[in-house]
Amino acid sequence: MAAEVMDLKARADRLRELHGEEMLVLPNAWDAASATIVAEAGFPVVATASAAISAMLGYPDNEGAPWSEMFAAAGRVARVVSVPVTVDAEAGYGMEPRELVDRLLEIGAVGCNLEDTDHRAGGLVEAGAHAQWLARVRSAAADAEVPIVINARVDTFLPKSGIPESDRLAEAVRRGRLYRDAGADCIYPIGVRHQDDIATLVAELPGPINGNTGDDLNLAKLRELGVARVSYGPRFYRTAMADLKTAVQELLS
Amino acid sequence: MAAEVMDLKARADRLRELHGEEMLVLPNAWDAASATIVAEAGFPVVATASAAISAMLGYPDNEGAPWSEMFAAAGRVARVVSVPVTVDAEAGYGMEPRELVDRLLEIGAVGCNLEDTDHRAGGLVEAGAHAQWLARVRSAAADAEVPIVINARVDTFLPKSGIPESDRLAEAVRRGRLYRDAGADCIYPIGVRHQDDIATLVAELPGPINGNTGDDLNLAKLRELGVARVSYGPRFYRTAMADLKTAVQELLS
Repeated sequence: MAAEVMDLKARADRLRELHGEEMLVLPNAWDAASATIVAEAGFPVVATASAAISAMLGYPDNEGAPWSEMFAAAGRVARVVSVPVTVDAEAGYGMEPRELVDRLLEIGAVGCNLEDTDHRAGGLVEAGAHAQWLARVRSAAADAEVPIVINARVDTFLPKSGIPESDRLAEAVRRGRLYRDAGADCIYPIGVRHQDDIATLVAELPGPINGNTGDDLNLAKLRELGVARVSYGPRFYRTAMADLKTAVQELLS
Repeated sequence: MAAEVMDLKARADRLRELHGEEMLVLPNAWDAASATIVAEAGFPVVATASAAISAMLGYPDNEGAPWSEMFAAAGRVARVVSVPVTVDAEAGYGMEPRELVDRLLEIGAVGCNLEDTDHRAGGLVEAGAHAQWLARVRSAAADAEVPIVINARVDTFLPKSGIPESDRLAEAVRRGRLYRDAGADCIYPIGVRHQDDIATLVAELPGPINGNTGDDLNLAKLRELGVARVSYGPRFYRTAMADLKTAVQELLS
């Protein structure tokens, strides 16, 4: 095994271990400077946020940017930090699993978010088909000898999923189980707002759950609920841009 | 003349006109989102800051980043705004004038900062040689039929210039005159801190002067002193990064 592959494997193992006892907190980065800040503050992992990176590049989120630019930007994050990096790879940009794995490893990433939104057709990808695709990503990672950490996003709670509100939780549980069985390391039901729903997801799904803070969901509450991993998505980037807007508008007055 | 060249020419003319009666204020941008914010706030021009862009890309300032990445990043700024864009092109990356002009126009930029620091040898480039090089940039822009606005940075006030403090002002005047004669549209003596020095530069140099705010130099004061153009360099980017640092450190506590 080449030294580089061994190093990537060690980082992937480390990232997986961090989905354990202590909650993994990920203030997502978008460029080399923000990644350095996160790593130097002492966070053991740097995660990217596709919504921040696509905005930075000047494209809409949801696979609106060319994948090559998204990977190049994520590569700039990975190049400057020595902690494991996990990339928000959206829905995989229509790539074959092997290509996706190769491109992640090429930039030095050892984890990825993969979402089940169908950016072309709208709504969600059929759950069974998505689980099969995740299993192929798992298998491609095994072939590459780097056990990439797959954070499988379940998008049922997003309004654009088209799933009626009353069905969202059950469908998230159904999908989460399928994705976990397919080899996902962590399940990320994005957009969950209620504590009860999170408690149900933690109870019903095997393995770690990725949550988000919000309204009455602070880090302490998420920890209490048993959430294993918390990410902030584009929140810090959006704050920076909102503050810039205020600052430049002040110059005009 | 091709439509694209006509459009670039119109933008260059517009940028030049803006070095006139009213002071041109440039809160420098570094990515597509910050550029959009500046343009949407109503600023008539978007300028880039090399120190911000190189930090974002994960390289040291002062030509520490590959020129191709610097131009690609500046291109993302230019792609998303319709106002004229002027690029901080550092010392020109060792390019021949024609190549520099072509690369600027290729990304849609119609102005540039060019500094007289010698990033390879240290200190400043010999003034006469730098003036000749600026004249060749002017001439290359004429050949390309786009009168690129050249903001010639005079780096005598930077400590790393190696020029004794007592000689900095006189040397800035000498260089500024040479660069203006060579065809620079605006002279940018970076790092000037004293109002008296700015007043002398405005009085002694023909054409517009680029200033910076600082200590007792706010926009009103710079306007009163006759400064034609004010830029902020990486200031807003650094503020955003400092705020991010504070925010992520708070997550840890």
